[in-house]
Amino acid sequence: MMEVVSENRSFGGRQIVAKHNSTACNTEMTFAVYLPPQAEDGEVPVLWYLSGLTCTHENAMTKGGFQEHCARHGIAIVFPDTSPRGEGVANDEAYDLGQGAGFYVNATCDPWRPHFQMYQYITEELYDLVEKEFPINDRHGITGHSMGGHGALTIAMRNPDRYQSLSAFAPIANPTNSDWGRKQLSAYLGDDETNWSAHDATLLLEQHGWQGDILIDQGASDQFLDLLKPEALSAAMARRRQAGSFRMQAGYDHSYYFVSTFAGDHVAWHAERLS
Amino acid sequence: MMEVVSENRSFGGRQIVAKHNSTACNTEMTFAVYLPPQAEDGEVPVLWYLSGLTCTHENAMTKGGFQEHCARHGIAIVFPDTSPRGEGVANDEAYDLGQGAGFYVNATCDPWRPHFQMYQYITEELYDLVEKEFPINDRHGITGHSMGGHGALTIAMRNPDRYQSLSAFAPIANPTNSDWGRKQLSAYLGDDETNWSAHDATLLLEQHGWQGDILIDQGASDQFLDLLKPEALSAAMARRRQAGSFRMQAGYDHSYYFVSTFAGDHVAWHAERLS
Repeated sequence: MMEVVSENRSFGGRQIVAKHNSTACNTEMTFAVYLPPQAEDGEVPVLWYLSGLTCTHENAMTKGGFQEHCARHGIAIVFPDTSPRGEGVANDEAYDLGQGAGFYVNATCDPWRPHFQMYQYITEELYDLVEKEFPINDRHGITGHSMGGHGALTIAMRNPDRYQSLSAFAPIANPTNSDWGRKQLSAYLGDDETNWSAHDATLLLEQHGWQGDILIDQGASDQFLDLLKPEALSAAMARRRQAGSFRMQAGYDHSYYFVSTFAGDHVAWHAERLS
Repeated sequence: MMEVVSENRSFGGRQIVAKHNSTACNTEMTFAVYLPPQAEDGEVPVLWYLSGLTCTHENAMTKGGFQEHCARHGIAIVFPDTSPRGEGVANDEAYDLGQGAGFYVNATCDPWRPHFQMYQYITEELYDLVEKEFPINDRHGITGHSMGGHGALTIAMRNPDRYQSLSAFAPIANPTNSDWGRKQLSAYLGDDETNWSAHDATLLLEQHGWQGDILIDQGASDQFLDLLKPEALSAAMARRRQAGSFRMQAGYDHSYYFVSTFAGDHVAWHAERLS
């Protein structure tokens, strides 16, 4: 059962925060949905926004500025949490492992296995819940920032039947080859690296590509360029002749000032492909 | 001396946070300035945004969504703090008195008098500092939310030579007649109520009015309507035939979802009058 935690009028629509008992994650999960004014009159397409390390459902909801653009284009947006949380859920002292750092995988190793099933949670459980509870049609787009950009790219390429449009903001582009990735994939999936490649956007792109075109924005002054490895993904896109735009944005860093600046472009991108 | 704390590229411009030793408040003060792209080529007008109870310079900077609109219209925006802070600065356990609740007055009573000089800080010290340090011309507008709406209205009406445009979001409209006002004005200014009227927007409007037109937005579902008393201000505007728009927005509450929804209208309002 879903319970509404809060609702605020925003740009003529409804910014809703809700919680539910997740079967996949075996704990209570909180998420946010913005419904544009057009949802009062019928079903609308939906954009999934996956957040980065340390974030909850709240950061992009309050700082991303997505609502204005979603209201203009008539599409909903969902902000899931980035991991299971709460009593009995494993954690780590580091900011980049455990709670707030689910990496959008299904953990197979203890202590993470009992709750850290974020891949299944996003692609199945919350997907179905959102379709059931809100006036959403079957057109889904997906995007995300940093760890969430990694999530968006890997989830979309592995589920081309469930998502019809794809973009990312400063994604962790090649986690099997980065300290943002090797540590977490090892902890969640074990040391056999052959199990990691299904969660690496660059490797997935080389193997499968994406059915449509992809929009990537990356700040040229991002303080985490060494960990994100955009060059791996951009090279893979070029080698595969993958349709899309990889934009290096001069002067921008990794913050929500970067995300909010280009939020309008991404919402328009998805709206055009989902409507 | 001013010191830059951080700078982030945002919508082609620069979101700057800075601190300085304030003479008026006798402590270090932090504030934020957003410079639109047009400020690279010359001086631009500036909009002052005064925040509400419990806020710092940061809340509206991160959640208001003003940067996009300021970039489009080519005006800067300043987000001051709402009170002095730090070691040796008096405080109160209540959220609505002391730090985070300066009410934009010059305190004459102890323990507040030594630091709580927010009226002078905003209208003189920070005003001059911003003109000196940034590419700002002499066209200033002022707005604010809740306690900051009170600040904007009272400061503008008392300084018509320093501000050329005026608006407010859900202002505390009649503080001499509200629990959001009587407690604070008594603490900061003493029990002689004749000293309070210079800090009450409704009373100032009745006595002086405003030289231009005023834009007020108020959420009809605001949870603090009983404390804000919009009816006092709207009646005073009508009685005085004050030029302006008082808009009651159906469904909106007191949150930043309300502020961000109408931020674009307010920036456009000021830009039109300042350019």
